Amino acid sequence: MNRVFADFNATSPLSAGAQTGMAKAIELWGNPSSSHWDGRQASEIISKSRDLVAQKAGVSPLEVVFTSGGSEANTLALMGTYFLGPSRLRLLTSAVKHSSIRDTARLLENLGVPVDYLPVQKNGVFSLETFKQHVDEFRPTLVSIMAANNETGVIFPIREISRFCRERGITIHTDAVQSFGKLDSESWNDCDLISITAHKIGGPKGIGALLVRRGTQLVATHYGGTQEIKRRGGTENTLGILGFGGACTDFPNQQDRMRIRELRDYFEKQLLETLSEVTLNGADVERIPNTTSIRFSGIPSEVLLGALDLEGVSVSAGSACSSGSLAPSHVLLAMGLSRTEAKECLRISWGKTTSRDDVDRVLEVVIRHVNRIRERRRQ
Amino acid sequence: MNRVFADFNATSPLSAGAQTGMAKAIELWGNPSSSHWDGRQASEIISKSRDLVAQKAGVSPLEVVFTSGGSEANTLALMGTYFLGPSRLRLLTSAVKHSSIRDTARLLENLGVPVDYLPVQKNGVFSLETFKQHVDEFRPTLVSIMAANNETGVIFPIREISRFCRERGITIHTDAVQSFGKLDSESWNDCDLISITAHKIGGPKGIGALLVRRGTQLVATHYGGTQEIKRRGGTENTLGILGFGGACTDFPNQQDRMRIRELRDYFEKQLLETLSEVTLNGADVERIPNTTSIRFSGIPSEVLLGALDLEGVSVSAGSACSSGSLAPSHVLLAMGLSRTEAKECLRISWGKTTSRDDVDRVLEVVIRHVNRIRERRRQ
Repeated sequence: MNRVFADFNATSPLSAGAQTGMAKAIELWGNPSSSHWDGRQASEIISKSRDLVAQKAGVSPLEVVFTSGGSEANTLALMGTYFLGPSRLRLLTSAVKHSSIRDTARLLENLGVPVDYLPVQKNGVFSLETFKQHVDEFRPTLVSIMAANNETGVIFPIREISRFCRERGITIHTDAVQSFGKLDSESWNDCDLISITAHKIGGPKGIGALLVRRGTQLVATHYGGTQEIKRRGGTENTLGILGFGGACTDFPNQQDRMRIRELRDYFEKQLLETLSEVTLNGADVERIPNTTSIRFSGIPSEVLLGALDLEGVSVSAGSACSSGSLAPSHVLLAMGLSRTEAKECLRISWGKTTSRDDVDRVLEVVIRHVNRIRERRRQ
Repeated sequence: MNRVFADFNATSPLSAGAQTGMAKAIELWGNPSSSHWDGRQASEIISKSRDLVAQKAGVSPLEVVFTSGGSEANTLALMGTYFLGPSRLRLLTSAVKHSSIRDTARLLENLGVPVDYLPVQKNGVFSLETFKQHVDEFRPTLVSIMAANNETGVIFPIREISRFCRERGITIHTDAVQSFGKLDSESWNDCDLISITAHKIGGPKGIGALLVRRGTQLVATHYGGTQEIKRRGGTENTLGILGFGGACTDFPNQQDRMRIRELRDYFEKQLLETLSEVTLNGADVERIPNTTSIRFSGIPSEVLLGALDLEGVSVSAGSACSSGSLAPSHVLLAMGLSRTEAKECLRISWGKTTSRDDVDRVLEVVIRHVNRIRERRRQ
């Protein structure tokens, strides 16, 4: 059976460029920190990968701090700022965020750091006015807002938020893990700290980066040498870094993103026209081009997910990082859905290798099973 | 030119098993946390790798917490214990340790944690009596002592140390990065926390593990999901984990270690017999079988290193993580060497793929250049 993968927000297959990069790293296996020939070879290929990543992320190579992934980048942004002055930190984040930010914020609260959570409206975002009001009242020293949500694809006004913070001297971090390759990098031009990861754009898992803009203070949270300009110690993950750089040579361009958006829009239109009692989450606001979060009333997501999986279709109920959990998505709850409603939602996300045939196949299978399950429930 | 690599304590070439493992991970690229087919395939192969690593490390698979390497494992051991109760922590470590421990200890001191450093004798170790005395006087809640030193290969009495700590309810961590594959895993049987890494045993860089023995409390320092039984969040580094597991199928056995020890002993004997004014560091104490730390009086290590590198021989002056640094090794200084003496030392370390020809080639090149440099200096 040919499977269709429609869960690109969870991860993506390794691109040809990523595989070429990794093959190079297997060949040049030296420790990049060694000063002899073997080390220098490894150090040179890493440097080229750093350039590739920096170019796609819209920063200078010296601003790229390679980490073990997006989650570490998020943790480093928050904890690295905390260690600068534990008693000074006041964190403003959103009710809607990745678990790496949520759980680090919780740890910070346990350590006595004041944290304020911005509520979102039904559409999944907050107004700029609400944001400004919270800043004025809470007076944060660090703001962490994701560029786009991983579950709904809803885009946050990170450009305006970051400008507002810059003017006030507030450090601004954005989790761009789900936006890298899907939004223009100009969006986070005014951010001080930006998290990205490789495996959402065709690179390997286990490698990401925190982009630390020039002049931004940060204490390392990981020690083991002077790697990454002393911002992240430990022997460099050559294989991961080369895979990340290689994936950047296959980076989705404007045309790819347009094509994916058209497929996604077609998919949503077909579903909404064919099925009743179907609701798009974040329908009326800007979203990244590849993501659909949709509710099929009366159908628990695990029932539909299981049926689709058996048919060879991989989609998800939300973040892969919470897949094992029985709790409803905190993102959907924050958008005002009831617990039952939140547990009736699927996330379908497309990627660069998605074809029209893939979309048609998922459409056919979803529609057939939604009808079948509802039919059976009526009996 | 065929190069000879004699810097296995810095890193090692990827073993055949590691490469096979990684090929499997490229094929099964799903997110192990996803509940669909793609995710389950990835999750299953990870589970097999976990078993392989656990077996070689002498622990249960549930005690393996994969990290991005040995440095993260070390940082996690210390910071994860700190976050359990910041005001309760009292850390006892050694004057001789990896920079990941040194720098994390420094961060902890900045955060107000009392830290005591055990001095070492000229031979590179401390007596058990000194250790016990420090424990009784300083009353640490956490002891972190490496199983063997990465620069000199000197072995610490970790078995006795860990038993002593166990009896007193003191948490005991050991950095076994340089001992995994070189010492019997029984050595750290009584430790609560053990750091290991893949790339010293033929696996890829960017993956390691903290072994957390059952019942040991630890707060995660990395968030992003419930991976690794909530002890280390973030999407699993499938490629790294499979490479680590694969490397364990090529794990050096007793015979390999014996062969390496014989080569190392032969190498040292030849050097000491042929050259004058040559001193072995840690000569009179137990060392891991593959490492030689040796001083060539009057010859700055960078001069000899450069000459060897041009001849196609890769060795190092000490830890790769400090290669860029001009400061003398803190390990050698702690052993009582002067700054000048410490900067006259080379570390030569052998591995499973080392042949007698490799050793003879390094011997020939080292002897020729030591004589040449001394000759020139005399003129």
